[in-house]
Amino acid sequence: MSKKNPAATPTYEFVVEWGDCDPADIVYYPNYYRWFDNASHRLIVAAGYFLDVVRDEHLALGFPLVNAEASFSAPARVGDHLQIHSQVIAAGRKSFTIEHEVMRAETVLVVGREIRIMGKRNANGILEAMILPEKLKQAFGVE
Amino acid sequence: MSKKNPAATPTYEFVVEWGDCDPADIVYYPNYYRWFDNASHRLIVAAGYFLDVVRDEHLALGFPLVNAEASFSAPARVGDHLQIHSQVIAAGRKSFTIEHEVMRAETVLVVGREIRIMGKRNANGILEAMILPEKLKQAFGVE
Amino acid sequence: MSKKNPAATPTYEFVVEWGDCDPADIVYYPNYYRWFDNASHRLIVAAGYFLDVVRDEHLALGFPLVNAEASFSAPARVGDHLQIHSQVIAAGRKSFTIEHEVMRAETVLVVGREIRIMGKRNANGILEAMILPEKLKQAFGVE
Amino acid sequence: MSKKNPAATPTYEFVVEWGDCDPADIVYYPNYYRWFDNASHRLIVAAGYFLDVVRDEHLALGFPLVNAEASFSAPARVGDHLQIHSQVIAAGRKSFTIEHEVMRAETVLVVGREIRIMGKRNANGILEAMILPEKLKQAFGVE
Repeated sequence: MSKKNPAATPTYEFVVEWGDCDPADIVYYPNYYRWFDNASHRLIVAAGYFLDVVRDEHLALGFPLVNAEASFSAPARVGDHLQIHSQVIAAGRKSFTIEHEVMRAETVLVVGREIRIMGKRNANGILEAMILPEKLKQAFGVE
Repeated sequence: MSKKNPAATPTYEFVVEWGDCDPADIVYYPNYYRWFDNASHRLIVAAGYFLDVVRDEHLALGFPLVNAEASFSAPARVGDHLQIHSQVIAAGRKSFTIEHEVMRAETVLVVGREIRIMGKRNANGILEAMILPEKLKQAFGVE
Repeated sequence: MSKKNPAATPTYEFVVEWGDCDPADIVYYPNYYRWFDNASHRLIVAAGYFLDVVRDEHLALGFPLVNAEASFSAPARVGDHLQIHSQVIAAGRKSFTIEHEVMRAETVLVVGREIRIMGKRNANGILEAMILPEKLKQAFGVE
Repeated sequence: MSKKNPAATPTYEFVVEWGDCDPADIVYYPNYYRWFDNASHRLIVAAGYFLDVVRDEHLALGFPLVNAEASFSAPARVGDHLQIHSQVIAAGRKSFTIEHEVMRAETVLVVGREIRIMGKRNANGILEAMILPEKLKQAFGVE
Protein backbone atom coordinates (compact mmCIF):
# COMPACT_ATOMS: atom_id res chain seq x y z
CA MET A 1 0.00 0.00 0.00
CA SER A 2 1.75 3.18 -1.12
CA LYS A 3 0.96 6.00 1.25
CA LYS A 4 0.42 9.13 -0.84
CA ASN A 5 -0.78 11.00 2.14
CA PRO A 6 0.64 9.49 5.30
CA ALA A 7 -0.12 12.54 7.44
CA ALA A 8 -3.83 11.95 6.93
CA THR A 9 -3.54 8.27 7.79
CA PRO A 10 -4.16 7.74 11.48
CA THR A 11 -3.25 4.27 12.67
CA TYR A 12 -5.88 2.46 14.68
CA GLU A 13 -4.37 0.27 17.39
CA PHE A 14 -6.11 -2.11 19.73
CA VAL A 15 -5.80 -5.40 21.56
CA VAL A 16 -7.71 -8.54 20.64
CA GLU A 17 -10.15 -9.26 23.46
CA TRP A 18 -11.36 -12.60 24.80
CA GLY A 19 -14.84 -11.86 23.47
CA ASP A 20 -13.47 -11.17 19.97
CA CYS A 21 -12.46 -14.82 19.69
CA ASP A 22 -14.48 -17.93 18.99
CA PRO A 23 -14.21 -21.59 20.03
CA ALA A 24 -11.37 -22.07 17.50
CA ASP A 25 -9.40 -19.73 19.78
CA ILE A 26 -8.89 -17.18 17.00
CA VAL A 27 -10.66 -13.95 16.10
CA TYR A 28 -14.25 -14.48 14.99
CA TYR A 29 -13.98 -13.12 11.48
CA PRO A 30 -16.90 -10.62 11.37
CA ASN A 31 -14.97 -8.61 13.97
CA TYR A 32 -12.47 -7.58 11.31
CA TYR A 33 -15.26 -5.68 9.56
CA ARG A 34 -16.15 -4.05 12.86
CA TRP A 35 -12.54 -2.93 13.13
CA PHE A 36 -12.52 -1.76 9.49
CA ASP A 37 -15.58 0.31 10.31
CA ASN A 38 -13.87 1.78 13.37
CA ALA A 39 -10.78 2.58 11.29
CA SER A 40 -12.86 4.19 8.52
CA HIS A 41 -14.64 6.42 11.01
CA ARG A 42 -11.24 7.58 12.28
CA LEU A 43 -10.26 8.49 8.70
CA ILE A 44 -13.53 10.33 8.17
CA VAL A 45 -13.18 12.25 11.43
CA ALA A 46 -9.51 13.00 10.65
CA ALA A 47 -10.80 14.52 7.40
CA GLY A 48 -12.92 16.95 9.43
CA TYR A 49 -16.22 15.15 9.01
CA PHE A 50 -17.34 14.78 12.58
CA LEU A 51 -20.78 13.28 13.13
CA ASP A 52 -22.42 16.67 13.74
CA VAL A 53 -20.93 18.04 10.50
CA VAL A 54 -22.20 14.99 8.60
CA ARG A 55 -25.66 15.29 10.10
CA ASP A 56 -26.21 19.02 10.55
CA GLU A 57 -24.31 20.49 7.59
CA HIS A 58 -24.81 17.72 5.07
CA LEU A 59 -28.07 16.18 6.33
CA ALA A 60 -26.44 12.81 5.73
CA LEU A 61 -27.00 9.80 7.94
CA GLY A 62 -23.51 8.41 7.55
CA PHE A 63 -21.33 6.47 5.13
CA PRO A 64 -23.06 3.19 4.29
CA LEU A 65 -21.32 0.37 2.47
CA VAL A 66 -21.65 -0.61 -1.17
CA ASN A 67 -19.11 -3.40 -1.01
CA ALA A 68 -16.64 -4.84 1.48
CA GLU A 69 -14.00 -7.47 1.00
CA ALA A 70 -11.20 -9.01 3.01
CA SER A 71 -8.43 -11.58 2.58
CA PHE A 72 -7.23 -13.38 5.67
CA SER A 73 -3.60 -14.60 5.69
CA ALA A 74 -3.00 -15.46 9.32
CA PRO A 75 -5.22 -15.61 12.40
CA ALA A 76 -5.04 -13.33 15.44
CA ARG A 77 -5.52 -14.49 19.02
CA VAL A 78 -6.49 -13.15 22.46
CA GLY A 79 -4.06 -10.51 23.62
CA ASP A 80 -2.54 -9.77 20.21
CA HIS A 81 -1.72 -6.13 19.66
CA LEU A 82 -3.04 -5.16 16.24
CA GLN A 83 -2.63 -2.10 14.10
CA ILE A 84 -4.81 -1.08 11.18
CA HIS A 85 -3.32 1.20 8.54
CA SER A 86 -6.13 2.68 6.46
CA GLN A 87 -6.12 4.88 3.42
CA VAL A 88 -8.62 6.17 0.89
CA ILE A 89 -7.22 4.81 -2.35
CA ALA A 90 -9.86 6.06 -4.80
CA ALA A 91 -12.90 8.31 -4.96
CA GLY A 92 -15.51 8.82 -7.64
CA ARG A 93 -18.41 11.22 -7.83
CA LYS A 94 -20.48 9.37 -5.25
CA SER A 95 -18.32 6.64 -3.73
CA PHE A 96 -14.87 6.12 -2.28
CA THR A 97 -12.67 3.12 -1.55
CA ILE A 98 -10.75 2.58 1.67
CA GLU A 99 -7.99 0.03 2.01
CA HIS A 100 -7.18 -1.47 5.40
CA GLU A 101 -4.09 -3.43 6.38
CA VAL A 102 -4.32 -5.26 9.68
CA MET A 103 -0.87 -5.93 11.11
CA ARG A 104 0.60 -7.67 14.13
CA ALA A 105 4.08 -6.17 14.44
CA GLU A 106 5.55 -6.63 10.95
CA THR A 107 3.11 -9.33 9.80
CA VAL A 108 0.13 -8.49 7.62
CA LEU A 109 -2.78 -10.59 8.87
CA VAL A 110 -5.66 -9.23 6.83
CA VAL A 111 -6.11 -6.86 3.91
CA GLY A 112 -9.54 -5.37 3.41
CA ARG A 113 -11.31 -2.94 1.16
CA GLU A 114 -14.54 -1.03 1.68
CA ILE A 115 -16.50 0.97 -0.90
CA ARG A 116 -18.72 3.54 0.78
CA ILE A 117 -21.09 6.30 -0.15
CA MET A 118 -22.26 9.34 1.80
CA GLY A 119 -25.91 8.49 2.32
CA LYS A 120 -29.06 10.49 2.86
CA ARG A 121 -32.74 9.61 2.88
CA ASN A 122 -34.72 11.10 0.02
CA ALA A 123 -38.29 12.41 0.33
CA ASN A 124 -39.61 8.84 0.23
CA GLY A 125 -37.29 7.66 2.98
CA ILE A 126 -35.11 5.74 0.52
CA LEU A 127 -31.37 5.78 1.16
CA GLU A 128 -29.51 7.59 -1.64
CA ALA A 129 -25.89 8.30 -2.47
CA MET A 130 -24.95 11.98 -2.31
CA ILE A 131 -22.34 13.71 -4.43
CA LEU A 132 -19.18 13.58 -2.32
CA PRO A 133 -18.03 17.01 -1.04
CA GLU A 134 -14.81 18.14 -2.75
CA LYS A 135 -13.47 19.07 0.68
CA LEU A 136 -13.82 15.47 1.81
CA LYS A 137 -11.96 14.13 -1.22
CA GLN A 138 -9.21 16.70 -0.75
CA ALA A 139 -8.81 15.73 2.87
CA PHE A 140 -8.60 12.09 1.78
CA GLY A 141 -5.86 13.07 -0.69
CA VAL A 142 -7.77 11.66 -3.68
CA GLU A 143 -9.32 14.72 -5.34
CA MET B 1 -27.64 -18.25 -8.24
CA SER B 2 -28.50 -21.55 -9.88
CA LYS B 3 -29.34 -24.16 -7.29
CA LYS B 4 -27.78 -27.44 -8.38
CA ASN B 5 -28.64 -29.03 -5.13
CA PRO B 6 -31.61 -27.28 -3.57
CA ALA B 7 -32.35 -30.11 -1.14
CA ALA B 8 -29.04 -29.48 0.56
CA THR B 9 -29.69 -25.76 0.82
CA PRO B 10 -31.34 -24.93 4.11
CA THR B 11 -32.67 -21.40 4.27
CA TYR B 12 -31.68 -19.37 7.28
CA GLU B 13 -34.44 -17.02 8.41
CA PHE B 14 -34.34 -14.41 11.12
CA VAL B 15 -35.58 -10.99 12.17
CA VAL B 16 -33.41 -7.88 12.29
CA GLU B 17 -33.07 -6.88 15.94
CA TRP B 18 -32.79 -3.41 17.47
CA GLY B 19 -29.20 -4.16 18.48
CA ASP B 20 -28.29 -5.17 14.91
CA CYS B 21 -28.84 -1.57 13.80
CA ASP B 22 -26.71 1.52 14.17
CA PRO B 23 -27.43 5.24 14.56
CA ALA B 24 -28.26 5.44 10.82
CA ASP B 25 -31.26 3.25 11.70
CA ILE B 26 -30.10 0.47 9.36
CA VAL B 27 -28.21 -2.79 9.92
CA TYR B 28 -24.64 -2.24 11.09
CA TYR B 29 -22.84 -3.90 8.20
CA PRO B 30 -20.48 -6.33 10.02
CA ASN B 31 -23.62 -8.16 11.15
CA TYR B 32 -24.12 -9.46 7.61
CA TYR B 33 -20.88 -11.42 8.00
CA ARG B 34 -22.12 -12.75 11.32
CA TRP B 35 -25.24 -13.94 9.50
CA PHE B 36 -23.15 -15.40 6.65
CA ASP B 37 -21.20 -17.34 9.27
CA ASN B 38 -24.43 -18.59 10.86
CA ALA B 39 -25.73 -19.63 7.43
CA SER B 40 -22.47 -21.40 6.54
CA HIS B 41 -22.53 -23.38 9.77
CA ARG B 42 -26.08 -24.53 8.89
CA LEU B 43 -24.78 -25.74 5.50
CA ILE B 44 -21.87 -27.53 7.13
CA VAL B 45 -24.12 -29.20 9.72
CA ALA B 46 -26.65 -30.10 6.99
CA ALA B 47 -23.74 -31.84 5.24
CA GLY B 48 -23.29 -34.04 8.33
CA TYR B 49 -20.30 -32.19 9.77
CA PHE B 50 -21.48 -31.52 13.29
CA LEU B 51 -18.98 -29.89 15.63
CA ASP B 52 -18.08 -33.17 17.34
CA VAL B 53 -17.45 -34.83 13.97
CA VAL B 54 -15.23 -31.92 12.93
CA ARG B 55 -13.30 -32.01 16.20
CA ASP B 56 -13.21 -35.68 17.18
CA GLU B 57 -13.06 -37.42 13.80
CA HIS B 58 -11.10 -34.84 11.83
CA LEU B 59 -9.16 -33.13 14.65
CA ALA B 60 -10.05 -29.86 12.93
CA LEU B 61 -10.81 -26.66 14.79
CA GLY B 62 -13.38 -25.40 12.32
CA PHE B 63 -13.70 -23.71 8.94
CA PRO B 64 -11.70 -20.47 9.00
CA LEU B 65 -11.96 -17.86 6.29
CA VAL B 66 -9.55 -17.15 3.49
CA ASN B 67 -11.63 -14.43 1.89
CA ALA B 68 -15.04 -12.85 2.35
CA GLU B 69 -16.83 -10.34 0.20
CA ALA B 70 -20.24 -8.72 0.06
CA SER B 71 -22.18 -6.28 -2.10
CA PHE B 72 -24.90 -4.26 -0.45
CA SER B 73 -27.81 -3.14 -2.65
CA ALA B 74 -30.42 -2.01 -0.15
CA PRO B 75 -30.43 -1.57 3.62
CA ALA B 76 -32.41 -3.60 6.16
CA ARG B 77 -34.10 -2.14 9.22
CA VAL B 78 -35.35 -3.17 12.67
CA GLY B 79 -38.07 -5.78 12.41
CA ASP B 80 -37.32 -6.83 8.83
CA HIS B 81 -37.76 -10.54 8.19
CA LEU B 82 -34.70 -11.73 6.27
CA GLN B 83 -33.87 -14.97 4.54
CA ILE B 84 -30.40 -16.15 3.54
CA HIS B 85 -30.11 -18.66 0.72
CA SER B 86 -26.68 -20.23 0.81
CA GLN B 87 -24.96 -22.66 -1.47
CA VAL B 88 -21.48 -24.09 -1.94
CA ILE B 89 -20.68 -23.02 -5.50
CA ALA B 90 -17.15 -24.39 -5.82
CA ALA B 91 -14.64 -26.55 -3.99
CA GLY B 92 -10.97 -27.21 -4.58
CA ARG B 93 -8.58 -29.55 -2.85
CA LYS B 94 -8.36 -27.47 0.30
CA SER B 95 -10.93 -24.67 0.04
CA PHE B 96 -14.55 -24.13 -0.85
CA THR B 97 -16.70 -21.15 -1.80
CA ILE B 98 -20.12 -20.40 -0.36
CA GLU B 99 -22.50 -17.90 -1.90
CA HIS B 100 -25.09 -16.14 0.25
CA GLU B 101 -28.12 -14.20 -0.92
CA VAL B 102 -29.83 -12.10 1.73
CA MET B 103 -33.43 -11.43 0.80
CA ARG B 104 -36.35 -9.49 2.24
CA ALA B 105 -39.37 -11.06 0.57
CA GLU B 106 -38.51 -10.89 -3.16
CA THR B 107 -35.81 -8.24 -2.86
CA VAL B 108 -32.13 -9.17 -2.81
CA LEU B 109 -30.45 -6.90 -0.26
CA VAL B 110 -26.95 -8.35 -0.10
CA VAL B 111 -24.95 -10.92 -2.02
CA GLY B 112 -21.91 -12.36 -0.28
CA ARG B 113 -19.25 -14.91 -0.88
CA GLU B 114 -16.96 -16.69 1.58
CA ILE B 115 -13.93 -18.85 0.81
CA ARG B 116 -13.18 -21.22 3.66
CA ILE B 117 -10.78 -23.99 4.54
CA MET B 118 -11.06 -26.81 7.04
CA GLY B 119 -8.37 -25.84 9.52
CA LYS B 120 -6.19 -27.71 11.97
CA ARG B 121 -3.20 -26.71 14.08
CA ASN B 122 0.05 -28.36 13.04
CA ALA B 123 2.72 -29.56 15.47
CA ASN B 124 3.94 -25.96 15.89
CA GLY B 125 0.46 -24.66 16.66
CA ILE B 126 0.19 -22.98 13.25
CA LEU B 127 -3.21 -23.08 11.56
CA GLU B 128 -3.11 -25.15 8.38
CA ALA B 129 -5.58 -26.02 5.63
CA MET B 130 -6.53 -29.71 5.50
CA ILE B 131 -7.45 -31.66 2.39
CA LEU B 132 -11.23 -31.46 2.24
CA PRO B 133 -13.01 -34.78 2.88
CA GLU B 134 -14.65 -36.13 -0.30
CA LYS B 135 -17.75 -36.83 1.75
CA LEU B 136 -18.05 -33.15 2.60
CA LYS B 137 -17.72 -32.08 -1.04
CA GLN B 138 -20.30 -34.69 -2.08
CA ALA B 139 -22.72 -33.45 0.53
CA PHE B 140 -22.16 -29.91 -0.76
CA GLY B 141 -22.96 -31.14 -4.29
CA VAL B 142 -19.60 -29.94 -5.67
CA GLU B 143 -17.47 -33.10 -5.85
CA MET C 1 -41.98 -17.13 37.67
CA SER C 2 -45.75 -17.10 37.97
CA LYS C 3 -47.35 -16.15 34.69
CA LYS C 4 -50.24 -13.83 35.42
CA ASN C 5 -50.71 -13.12 31.79
CA PRO C 6 -49.37 -15.98 29.72
CA ALA C 7 -51.17 -14.89 26.55
CA ALA C 8 -49.03 -11.76 26.46
CA THR C 9 -45.82 -13.73 26.96
CA PRO C 10 -44.31 -14.65 23.62
CA THR C 11 -41.46 -17.11 23.91
CA TYR C 12 -38.28 -16.19 22.11
CA GLU C 13 -36.47 -19.23 20.68
CA PHE C 14 -33.12 -19.40 18.97
CA VAL C 15 -30.01 -21.50 18.48
CA VAL C 16 -26.61 -20.67 19.99
CA GLU C 17 -24.28 -19.79 17.12
CA TRP C 18 -20.55 -20.43 16.77
CA GLY C 19 -19.91 -16.70 16.98
CA ASP C 20 -21.89 -16.43 20.24
CA CYS C 21 -19.24 -18.55 21.96
CA ASP C 22 -15.78 -17.69 23.22
CA PRO C 23 -12.51 -19.63 23.58
CA ALA C 24 -13.92 -21.40 26.66
CA ASP C 25 -16.35 -23.02 24.22
CA ILE C 26 -19.38 -21.58 25.99
CA VAL C 27 -21.58 -18.55 25.35
CA TYR C 28 -19.73 -15.26 25.76
CA TYR C 29 -21.80 -13.80 28.57
CA PRO C 30 -22.67 -10.32 27.19
CA ASN C 31 -24.72 -12.14 24.54
CA TYR C 32 -27.30 -13.04 27.16
CA TYR C 33 -28.07 -9.32 27.53
CA ARG C 34 -28.38 -9.06 23.75
CA TRP C 35 -30.92 -11.88 23.91
CA PHE C 36 -32.72 -10.23 26.85
CA ASP C 37 -32.96 -7.10 24.73
CA ASN C 38 -34.35 -9.09 21.79
CA ALA C 39 -36.88 -10.76 24.09
CA SER C 40 -37.92 -7.43 25.63
CA HIS C 41 -38.52 -5.91 22.22
CA ARG C 42 -40.79 -8.87 21.40
CA LEU C 43 -42.79 -8.15 24.59
CA ILE C 44 -43.03 -4.47 23.73
CA VAL C 45 -44.15 -5.19 20.17
CA ALA C 46 -46.62 -7.82 21.43
CA ALA C 47 -48.06 -5.04 23.61
CA GLY C 48 -48.76 -3.02 20.46
CA TYR C 49 -45.80 -0.66 20.76
CA PHE C 50 -44.19 -1.05 17.34
CA LEU C 51 -41.24 1.20 16.61
CA ASP C 52 -43.30 3.65 14.56
CA VAL C 53 -45.86 3.96 17.37
CA VAL C 54 -43.06 4.58 19.87
CA ARG C 55 -41.44 7.19 17.64
CA ASP C 56 -44.33 8.88 15.85
CA GLU C 57 -47.09 8.78 18.48
CA HIS C 58 -44.99 9.06 21.61
CA LEU C 59 -41.92 10.88 20.25
CA ALA C 60 -39.87 8.44 22.31
CA LEU C 61 -36.52 7.06 21.20
CA GLY C 62 -36.99 3.66 22.78
CA PHE C 63 -36.81 1.90 26.14
CA PRO C 64 -33.37 2.48 27.65
CA LEU C 65 -32.11 0.57 30.65
CA VAL C 66 -31.88 1.74 34.24
CA ASN C 67 -30.58 -1.55 35.60
CA ALA C 68 -29.91 -5.06 34.33
CA GLU C 69 -28.93 -8.14 36.24
CA ALA C 70 -28.43 -11.82 35.53
CA SER C 71 -27.54 -15.01 37.39
CA PHE C 72 -25.85 -17.77 35.44
CA SER C 73 -26.42 -21.35 36.63
CA ALA C 74 -25.17 -23.43 33.72
CA PRO C 75 -23.39 -22.63 30.47
CA ALA C 76 -24.79 -22.98 26.95
CA ARG C 77 -22.80 -24.21 23.97
CA VAL C 78 -22.77 -24.05 20.17
CA GLY C 79 -25.92 -25.59 18.71
CA ASP C 80 -27.98 -25.46 21.91
CA HIS C 81 -31.63 -24.63 21.36
CA LEU C 82 -32.61 -21.99 23.89
CA GLN C 83 -35.91 -20.49 24.89
CA ILE C 84 -36.42 -17.24 26.74
CA HIS C 85 -39.64 -16.78 28.71
CA SER C 86 -40.10 -13.11 29.50
CA GLN C 87 -42.67 -11.28 31.54
CA VAL C 88 -43.20 -7.77 32.87
CA ILE C 89 -43.34 -8.36 36.62
CA ALA C 90 -43.75 -4.79 37.84
CA ALA C 91 -44.37 -1.30 36.57
CA GLY C 92 -44.20 2.07 38.29
CA ARG C 93 -45.03 5.53 37.01
CA LYS C 94 -41.94 5.77 34.83
CA SER C 95 -40.22 2.37 34.83
CA PHE C 96 -41.02 -1.29 34.44
CA THR C 97 -39.26 -4.54 35.27
CA ILE C 98 -38.97 -7.50 32.92
CA GLU C 99 -37.92 -10.95 34.08
CA HIS C 100 -36.25 -13.35 31.65
CA GLU C 101 -35.74 -17.07 32.09
CA VAL C 102 -33.34 -18.68 29.64
CA MET C 103 -34.02 -22.39 29.31
CA ARG C 104 -32.53 -25.33 27.45
CA ALA C 105 -35.34 -27.89 27.41
CA GLU C 106 -36.35 -28.15 31.10
CA THR C 107 -33.15 -26.64 32.54
CA VAL C 108 -33.00 -23.00 33.60
CA LEU C 109 -29.59 -21.69 32.54
CA VAL C 110 -29.91 -17.99 33.30
CA VAL C 111 -32.39 -15.74 35.09
CA GLY C 112 -32.24 -12.04 34.28
CA ARG C 113 -34.03 -8.87 35.14
CA GLU C 114 -34.12 -5.55 33.32
CA ILE C 115 -35.53 -2.25 34.57
CA ARG C 116 -36.40 0.04 31.69
CA ILE C 117 -37.92 3.43 31.06
CA MET C 118 -39.61 4.88 28.00
CA GLY C 119 -37.11 7.56 27.02
CA LYS C 120 -37.31 10.84 25.16
CA ARG C 121 -34.86 13.69 24.64
CA ASN C 122 -35.87 16.93 26.33
CA ALA C 123 -35.34 20.40 24.82
CA ASN C 124 -31.66 20.26 25.84
CA GLY C 125 -31.10 16.88 24.22
CA ILE C 126 -30.95 15.13 27.60
CA LEU C 127 -32.54 11.69 27.83
CA GLU C 128 -35.55 11.70 30.16
CA ALA C 129 -37.97 9.10 31.47
CA MET C 130 -41.55 9.59 30.28
CA ILE C 131 -44.69 8.68 32.20
CA LEU C 132 -45.55 5.19 30.99
CA PRO C 133 -48.76 5.00 28.91
CA GLU C 134 -51.56 3.22 30.80
CA LYS C 135 -52.23 1.23 27.63
CA LEU C 136 -48.71 -0.17 27.73
CA LYS C 137 -49.03 -1.23 31.37
CA GLN C 138 -52.41 -2.83 30.67
CA ALA C 139 -50.96 -4.77 27.76
CA PHE C 140 -48.15 -5.91 30.06
CA GLY C 141 -50.76 -7.08 32.59
CA VAL C 142 -49.32 -4.92 35.37
CA GLU C 143 -51.62 -1.90 35.52
CA MET D 1 -15.30 2.99 45.28
CA SER D 2 -12.43 3.06 47.76
CA LYS D 3 -9.24 1.91 46.12
CA LYS D 4 -7.37 -0.29 48.60
CA ASN D 5 -4.90 -1.27 45.98
CA PRO D 6 -4.74 1.38 43.32
CA ALA D 7 -1.45 0.13 41.88
CA ALA D 8 -3.15 -3.07 40.80
CA THR D 9 -6.02 -1.20 39.20
CA PRO D 10 -5.30 -0.58 35.56
CA THR D 11 -7.72 1.82 33.94
CA TYR D 12 -9.28 0.67 30.71
CA GLU D 13 -9.83 3.52 28.27
CA PHE D 14 -11.56 3.48 24.92
CA VAL D 15 -13.74 5.45 22.55
CA VAL D 16 -17.39 4.65 21.84
CA GLU D 17 -17.62 3.49 18.24
CA TRP D 18 -20.42 3.99 15.72
CA GLY D 19 -21.17 0.26 15.83
CA ASP D 20 -21.48 0.31 19.63
CA CYS D 21 -24.58 2.50 19.31
CA ASP D 22 -28.13 1.66 18.37
CA PRO D 23 -30.94 3.52 16.60
CA ALA D 24 -31.57 5.57 19.77
CA ASP D 25 -28.13 7.06 19.08
CA ILE D 26 -26.75 5.84 22.40
CA VAL D 27 -24.66 2.84 23.41
CA TYR D 28 -26.49 -0.46 22.92
CA TYR D 29 -26.50 -1.64 26.52
CA PRO D 30 -25.07 -5.19 26.18
CA ASN D 31 -21.82 -3.53 25.09
CA TYR D 32 -21.22 -2.37 28.66
CA TYR D 33 -20.92 -6.01 29.69
CA ARG D 34 -18.46 -6.57 26.84
CA TRP D 35 -16.42 -3.68 28.23
CA PHE D 36 -16.71 -5.05 31.79
CA ASP D 37 -15.36 -8.33 30.46
CA ASN D 38 -12.47 -6.55 28.75
CA ALA D 39 -11.71 -4.64 31.94
CA SER D 40 -11.84 -7.80 34.07
CA HIS D 41 -9.41 -9.57 31.77
CA ARG D 42 -7.02 -6.63 32.20
CA LEU D 43 -7.27 -7.04 36.00
CA ILE D 44 -6.68 -10.76 35.74
CA VAL D 45 -3.67 -10.31 33.46
CA ALA D 46 -2.32 -7.52 35.70
CA ALA D 47 -2.50 -10.09 38.53
CA GLY D 48 -0.14 -12.33 36.54
CA TYR D 49 -2.79 -14.72 35.25
CA PHE D 50 -2.08 -14.66 31.53
CA LEU D 51 -4.11 -17.03 29.39
CA ASP D 52 -1.29 -19.60 29.13
CA VAL D 53 -0.88 -19.61 32.93
CA VAL D 54 -4.62 -20.10 33.35
CA ARG D 55 -4.70 -22.92 30.83
CA ASP D 56 -1.37 -24.67 31.20
CA GLU D 57 -0.65 -24.30 34.91
CA HIS D 58 -4.19 -24.38 36.25
CA LEU D 59 -5.95 -26.38 33.52
CA ALA D 60 -8.75 -23.83 33.77
CA LEU D 61 -10.77 -22.62 30.81
CA GLY D 62 -11.24 -19.10 32.09
CA PHE D 63 -13.29 -17.08 34.55
CA PRO D 64 -16.98 -17.63 33.82
CA LEU D 65 -19.70 -15.52 35.35
CA VAL D 66 -22.01 -16.39 38.22
CA ASN D 67 -23.77 -13.05 38.30
CA ALA D 68 -23.50 -9.68 36.60
CA GLU D 69 -25.34 -6.47 37.32
CA ALA D 70 -25.23 -2.88 36.17
CA SER D 71 -26.94 0.42 36.90
CA PHE D 72 -27.10 2.96 34.11
CA SER D 73 -27.23 6.64 35.11
CA ALA D 74 -26.50 8.46 31.87
CA PRO D 75 -26.08 7.34 28.27
CA ALA D 76 -22.88 7.45 26.22
CA ARG D 77 -22.71 8.39 22.55
CA VAL D 78 -20.51 7.93 19.48
CA GLY D 79 -17.08 9.42 20.01
CA ASP D 80 -17.28 9.62 23.81
CA HIS D 81 -14.02 8.85 25.57
CA LEU D 82 -14.78 6.42 28.38
CA GLN D 83 -12.71 5.10 31.25
CA ILE D 84 -13.47 2.02 33.30
CA HIS D 85 -12.03 1.81 36.81
CA SER D 86 -12.19 -1.77 38.00
CA GLN D 87 -11.34 -3.38 41.29
CA VAL D 88 -11.78 -6.75 42.96
CA ILE D 89 -13.83 -5.84 46.02
CA ALA D 90 -14.30 -9.30 47.54
CA ALA D 91 -13.16 -12.88 47.14
CA GLY D 92 -14.38 -16.10 48.71
CA ARG D 93 -13.07 -19.63 48.43
CA LYS D 94 -14.30 -20.12 44.89
CA SER D 95 -15.61 -16.78 43.61
CA PHE D 96 -14.64 -13.14 43.46
CA THR D 97 -16.45 -9.86 42.85
CA ILE D 98 -15.26 -7.11 40.55
CA GLU D 99 -16.68 -3.63 40.59
CA HIS D 100 -16.57 -1.46 37.48
CA GLU D 101 -17.15 2.27 37.23
CA VAL D 102 -17.63 3.61 33.71
CA MET D 103 -16.79 7.29 33.54
CA ARG D 104 -16.84 10.04 30.93
CA ALA D 105 -14.46 12.66 32.36
CA GLU D 106 -15.80 13.25 35.90
CA THR D 107 -19.26 11.77 35.32
CA VAL D 108 -20.09 8.23 36.38
CA LEU D 109 -22.27 6.74 33.64
CA VAL D 110 -22.57 3.12 34.74
CA VAL D 111 -21.65 1.10 37.81
CA GLY D 112 -21.39 -2.65 37.35
CA ARG D 113 -20.53 -5.70 39.37
CA GLU D 114 -19.48 -9.16 38.20
CA ILE D 115 -19.14 -12.31 40.30
CA ARG D 116 -16.82 -14.80 38.65
CA ILE D 117 -15.31 -18.18 39.31
CA MET D 118 -12.20 -19.83 37.92
CA GLY D 119 -13.72 -22.66 35.89
CA LYS D 120 -12.57 -26.06 34.77
CA ARG D 121 -14.31 -29.00 33.16
CA ASN D 122 -14.56 -32.07 35.38
CA ALA D 123 -14.21 -35.66 34.12
CA ASN D 124 -17.78 -35.54 32.79
CA GLY D 125 -17.20 -32.32 30.88
CA ILE D 126 -19.26 -30.31 33.38
CA LEU D 127 -18.01 -26.82 34.20
CA GLU D 128 -16.93 -26.58 37.86
CA ALA D 129 -15.66 -23.82 40.12
CA MET D 130 -12.07 -24.28 41.29
CA ILE D 131 -10.62 -23.16 44.60
CA LEU D 132 -9.12 -19.75 43.85
CA PRO D 133 -5.30 -19.65 44.01
CA GLU D 134 -4.08 -17.63 47.02
CA LYS D 135 -1.63 -15.90 44.71
CA LEU D 136 -4.51 -14.58 42.62
CA LYS D 137 -6.36 -13.23 45.67
CA GLN D 138 -3.16 -11.62 46.94
CA ALA D 139 -2.58 -9.96 43.60
CA PHE D 140 -6.16 -8.70 43.71
CA GLY D 141 -5.50 -7.28 47.17
CA VAL D 142 -8.34 -9.24 48.75
CA GLU D 143 -6.63 -12.18 50.47
